[in-house]
Amino acid sequence: MEPCDAARPGFDRVAGAPPRRLLLPPLLLSLLLGRGLRVAAAASASSGAAAEDSSAMEELATEKEAEESHRQDSVSLLTFILLLTLTILTIWLFKHRRVRFLHETGLAMIYGLIVGVILRYGTPATSGRDKSLSCTQEDRAFSTLLVNVSGKFFEYTLKGEISPGKINSVEQNDMLRKVTFDPEVFFNILLPPIIFHAGYSLKKRHFFRNLGSILAYAFLGTAVSCFIIGNLMYGVVKLMKIMGQLSDKFYYTDCLFFGAIISATDPVTVLAIFNELHADVDLYALLFGESVLNDAVAIVLSSSIVAYQPAGLNTHAFDAAAFFKSVGIFLGIFSGSFTMGAVTGVVTALMTKFTKLHCFPLLETALFFLMSWSTFLLAEACGFTGVVAVLFCGITQAHYTYNNLSVESRSRTKQLFEVLHFLAENFIFSYMGLALFTFQKHVFSPVFIIGAFVAIFLGRAAHIYPLSFFLNLGRRHKIGWNFQHMMMFSGLRGAMAFALAIRDTASYARQMMFTTTLLIVFFTVWIIGGGTTPMLSWLNIRVGVDPDQDPPPNNDSFQVLQGDGPDSARGNRTKQESAWIFRLWYSFDHNYLKPILTHSGPPLTTTLPAWCGLLARCLTSPQVYDNQEPLREEDSDFILTEGDLTLTYGDSTVTANGSSGSHTGSTSLEGSRRTKSSSEEVLERDLGMGDQKYLSKAGQVLGEGLPHMRGCISVHSSASQADHRNIKLGENRLEEGSRRKAIEIGTPRIMGNWC
Amino acid sequence: MEPCDAARPGFDRVAGAPPRRLLLPPLLLSLLLGRGLRVAAAASASSGAAAEDSSAMEELATEKEAEESHRQDSVSLLTFILLLTLTILTIWLFKHRRVRFLHETGLAMIYGLIVGVILRYGTPATSGRDKSLSCTQEDRAFSTLLVNVSGKFFEYTLKGEISPGKINSVEQNDMLRKVTFDPEVFFNILLPPIIFHAGYSLKKRHFFRNLGSILAYAFLGTAVSCFIIGNLMYGVVKLMKIMGQLSDKFYYTDCLFFGAIISATDPVTVLAIFNELHADVDLYALLFGESVLNDAVAIVLSSSIVAYQPAGLNTHAFDAAAFFKSVGIFLGIFSGSFTMGAVTGVVTALMTKFTKLHCFPLLETALFFLMSWSTFLLAEACGFTGVVAVLFCGITQAHYTYNNLSVESRSRTKQLFEVLHFLAENFIFSYMGLALFTFQKHVFSPVFIIGAFVAIFLGRAAHIYPLSFFLNLGRRHKIGWNFQHMMMFSGLRGAMAFALAIRDTASYARQMMFTTTLLIVFFTVWIIGGGTTPMLSWLNIRVGVDPDQDPPPNNDSFQVLQGDGPDSARGNRTKQESAWIFRLWYSFDHNYLKPILTHSGPPLTTTLPAWCGLLARCLTSPQVYDNQEPLREEDSDFILTEGDLTLTYGDSTVTANGSSGSHTGSTSLEGSRRTKSSSEEVLERDLGMGDQKYLSKAGQVLGEGLPHMRGCISVHSSASQADHRNIKLGENRLEEGSRRKAIEIGTPRIMGNWC
Repeated sequence: MEPCDAARPGFDRVAGAPPRRLLLPPLLLSLLLGRGLRVAAAASASSGAAAEDSSAMEELATEKEAEESHRQDSVSLLTFILLLTLTILTIWLFKHRRVRFLHETGLAMIYGLIVGVILRYGTPATSGRDKSLSCTQEDRAFSTLLVNVSGKFFEYTLKGEISPGKINSVEQNDMLRKVTFDPEVFFNILLPPIIFHAGYSLKKRHFFRNLGSILAYAFLGTAVSCFIIGNLMYGVVKLMKIMGQLSDKFYYTDCLFFGAIISATDPVTVLAIFNELHADVDLYALLFGESVLNDAVAIVLSSSIVAYQPAGLNTHAFDAAAFFKSVGIFLGIFSGSFTMGAVTGVVTALMTKFTKLHCFPLLETALFFLMSWSTFLLAEACGFTGVVAVLFCGITQAHYTYNNLSVESRSRTKQLFEVLHFLAENFIFSYMGLALFTFQKHVFSPVFIIGAFVAIFLGRAAHIYPLSFFLNLGRRHKIGWNFQHMMMFSGLRGAMAFALAIRDTASYARQMMFTTTLLIVFFTVWIIGGGTTPMLSWLNIRVGVDPDQDPPPNNDSFQVLQGDGPDSARGNRTKQESAWIFRLWYSFDHNYLKPILTHSGPPLTTTLPAWCGLLARCLTSPQVYDNQEPLREEDSDFILTEGDLTLTYGDSTVTANGSSGSHTGSTSLEGSRRTKSSSEEVLERDLGMGDQKYLSKAGQVLGEGLPHMRGCISVHSSASQADHRNIKLGENRLEEGSRRKAIEIGTPRIMGNWC
Repeated sequence: MEPCDAARPGFDRVAGAPPRRLLLPPLLLSLLLGRGLRVAAAASASSGAAAEDSSAMEELATEKEAEESHRQDSVSLLTFILLLTLTILTIWLFKHRRVRFLHETGLAMIYGLIVGVILRYGTPATSGRDKSLSCTQEDRAFSTLLVNVSGKFFEYTLKGEISPGKINSVEQNDMLRKVTFDPEVFFNILLPPIIFHAGYSLKKRHFFRNLGSILAYAFLGTAVSCFIIGNLMYGVVKLMKIMGQLSDKFYYTDCLFFGAIISATDPVTVLAIFNELHADVDLYALLFGESVLNDAVAIVLSSSIVAYQPAGLNTHAFDAAAFFKSVGIFLGIFSGSFTMGAVTGVVTALMTKFTKLHCFPLLETALFFLMSWSTFLLAEACGFTGVVAVLFCGITQAHYTYNNLSVESRSRTKQLFEVLHFLAENFIFSYMGLALFTFQKHVFSPVFIIGAFVAIFLGRAAHIYPLSFFLNLGRRHKIGWNFQHMMMFSGLRGAMAFALAIRDTASYARQMMFTTTLLIVFFTVWIIGGGTTPMLSWLNIRVGVDPDQDPPPNNDSFQVLQGDGPDSARGNRTKQESAWIFRLWYSFDHNYLKPILTHSGPPLTTTLPAWCGLLARCLTSPQVYDNQEPLREEDSDFILTEGDLTLTYGDSTVTANGSSGSHTGSTSLEGSRRTKSSSEEVLERDLGMGDQKYLSKAGQVLGEGLPHMRGCISVHSSASQADHRNIKLGENRLEEGSRRKAIEIGTPRIMGNWC
């Protein structure tokens, strides 16, 4: 160990706050630090004040400084809360007035920008209190230092390395420093609830119906986009080098990394408008599914690119071994995270199935929350990516656990994660606005920025059109040109790109990427978000669609559903469209996983071979046996004992299950369905289970809202099963002249009798 | 500046983790730290590894170490989640089996203890990697050090002082270090949701009815208890000094501080059992109100005692000036925190009143959450106590804002804070169990512990009995002996005492206090929690009480309500019992605050003087004008047009509003009520508004559960007002031979017509 070089001035002292950006949780905590009892609290030294007095005086002084710092922290977090509060109030105003050109996220960014400008130019810069000193004492840094200050020992922890050039520029605006914080906060505190909520609120039916296309867009598409953008940007970088606009290194791997982070699309504004206008559900599923999964792909892709380290000194040349190692890392991290998420989801499903926790919704909700959080920790503990694991955990929870929860817990968990998601998302977007002016290390390069805009445009085009062409070869329900254009248009970048970009802003290249990403997010969220409604009508994409209805039969003409399609053909479309792998999975899921993990599905005693009898009996929920009678009935879509159920509503006639047409058509459809009892028949119905509405509500609606309904409804119910029975009623929507009412029976355990 | 003493070995290097307790948020964060892109992440040095190689090798090594540390952090948080999950599952089992002798908090402590024992004795202690070195360089500590390590600059932040004796004992069990974390976490992250929930879920009606007594118990009682315990403990300390059992200083102020922290009662287990058995509501209100407020009093009291710093060198003698300064600080902090909480509550109420946010429950819930959180920050920023502010914010939100929220937001906010409260509480209790074995600085002193048990017993007795005697002089509805015994018995210590004790464990005296507090919490939670049910029956305290009913007329005989009390006397009890100050406040609240802050109450144009006409019109909610018709009707308790509504249910006859007796009695009561229309008349009803149940539910219950009800119910409703109308139906309880059904109309806007 080298001796501490005492001849050169020993330590750099920075008063009050650390010189670089504050870590949020320390910020959060230090702001939370009570000011009452801080007697033995860490002393924060001020270099200006005289320290020659008694220790009591000194203690008082340091305590006062700590209090002052704590107060400033509180004020800076209050700034963010004020921002969010303002955003919420303005969102309300916009929703109230039906303003659609600006989404809440865009608004949050604008408020952030304004506060950023005020902080940047409106507050005086504090300076002069810091001196730059240095003390070389060994060739490595320690994680902890114990410093003996005249007999007292103080403990210091390592915060990170500072580039030598920055040492002397610690004179910063205090407030600017306060509002910048650790990027890992985005990644590890704000993103997980957003991503979990995306998985948990997935509309399974349409997602699974388009699963093949979604997977192709998310995996192949993101890889293509990353590769194209990376290569185009490498060209831009080469050009900049020739033009002499590049002041530091910018490697090919940096370009690929940029391609990876900027390939994470986040059409949050587009989807919000889709939701509001009830735009085409399949397009919604494609966009939503793609954006959710490509976030995961982008995370893993970017860390694989970072992990790409060729042997030898030339660390940025192509090396086949390193490349395949990166691919291996990609597959490993992805599948590992996927497994972690699925496993905790399955464990939660088993816990909620085999206990009667559903009698205590509070306990159930707490367990659900803890298990979902433990997914993140488990994945991180095992070296996988927590955010990706959380996504698949959300999907698993929605697919299995959700069915075991009590009615109250279902709404509690949904609402809990909805609030968390809302707060986290708006916080990120308002922080983005703030960061444009308060971030200290921006590298604005017009050539790079213009190049990036062109590259993401081309990358998105190379992602959507060729892939759609190939997908259409296999799809029965083609992805039309207008869908492709809309997907092309909806390539917004948002929270994930920002979080990936801010995660590492140490090098020149990364700083330039961060600045460019920020501008791309601003541009896409404001311009594309605002242009969604005109684009929808320009592309003739139908709006006002009931999500429980099937898409129109002729897939290239996107007229409003007219209720004249061939019913028999449509009835089996789901089955025909699904790839054989998916059907295999579905039947496995329906016959084995669902009965094992939930209270629904056929009893395992009927699906498992005879020699597994004991095991099957143990695993099958007793409720399944209780419900064996309705379970047989389940295999027909629903029970129509006498004729059909037809609602004359508005100007069109819709029969049950959303299929519209003449009475004979629907009756024959139901007839043909009732005769079959294979698991595939219930596929479509089952996938729709996520949006259940309950008996009581349905009853209310039936009683109040459907004066035109012919016939009566009688529902057999016993007290113990009342929770599980539900009748799903599609909501009545008044859009584009077509009023429809779809009645569908959601779960297998319905014993409703429509007479 | 002294030079860094390089001759003596320079720095103490501790591998991996810092030597003292970890800060949770750093822990939380560092465990959350992603492992993918950590290229420029902080390097953590290992003293064992060779550092002579290339920087790339070193970077890899440090990155691996950081990853390892991150993984360990994840594992340790997973431990806590496992603990909580286990607790939840066992709670369910206990609730399922109706086991009442052990509350969930007691259970959490037991699991914590078990894990603590395993960590302490089951895992091998790691040692030998740390060396104790020292580097004196100045007489003060800096908050930040910049260390130049062979050209690279590393930043260190101060974690705190370490007592010299501990320097050499850094060889600790890694896992033990992992699971101990910053006490401020309890105070600033875990307590606020617990305290807010307490305020928000307050049953206002019974709370306000007993407000005078509750305030007396909380303020006077806690001060008495603190003083008595402090003095008794000073005697114990003197005794220990004589016996030679005291190895370090223990001042009188320390004793008073102990008295303050241990005076915070937390009868969480008792109240849970009260809730479950529906024990006497007034006793519940007294206990709950006292425990909620005395938490706040204890916090402020303890910080005032810390702030007691007499002038001169003799810093622990009595000094009148310093004493009055402490009293001033107490009053200042308390009233300041109270004001902060009330102000943010009022601002939230105004925001929710004058916007139509209630159309968007998600926005409303988010706003509510942010405003409640900002209370904490605001109070901390202004130098008050966040936890106390949060309590009063919760009460204000429940009293005003709650009435402006949409139905969905009401349940959302309640459920959100319920979950947060549940998780935080169980986390604290399981951490307590863990701390008994993993905390490194226990000072077990049998004399002090026995003395403390005796002192808290005597302190509680001196708190309850004399105060009850004086209160009974003024109370019409006396606090009976069995109530007093029960309150004496329910003096459990819980989360607040623990959080206050762990906040500062630097000195010997504080460590001894912490250990003693921990044992007191264990003992009281397990023994007293388990003994609540026997105690209730031994003291003849009635259970199975409908919270919406009035207490029995004869207050000293606690027999089961027999339904033969004089109705007319009971009808006006609330008014008679309330102190004049409270009545003054109530009429001010009802006439001015409620109309300004909520949609209910009389229009301001009728209550304010004429010259305020314009202001009154601006502030009054348009809904009040819309509802002016029903608002006039409101002033009679509810509308009984023809005769009375009597439910013959089980073996007793209960009339509306919970008053039981003969038909003539109740009719005359209602008759007398209908004639009056002063604001005081609605006092009681208004206070009960917190527990509203809604029309639909009431309708259901009416339809299903009340076959014996004579007559019919017709409710006039228009779409816009349906939300606000509700009929509260006390739930049917089968307890001790008395089946009752109380029907009460909760809000003023009811237009229900009982015929």
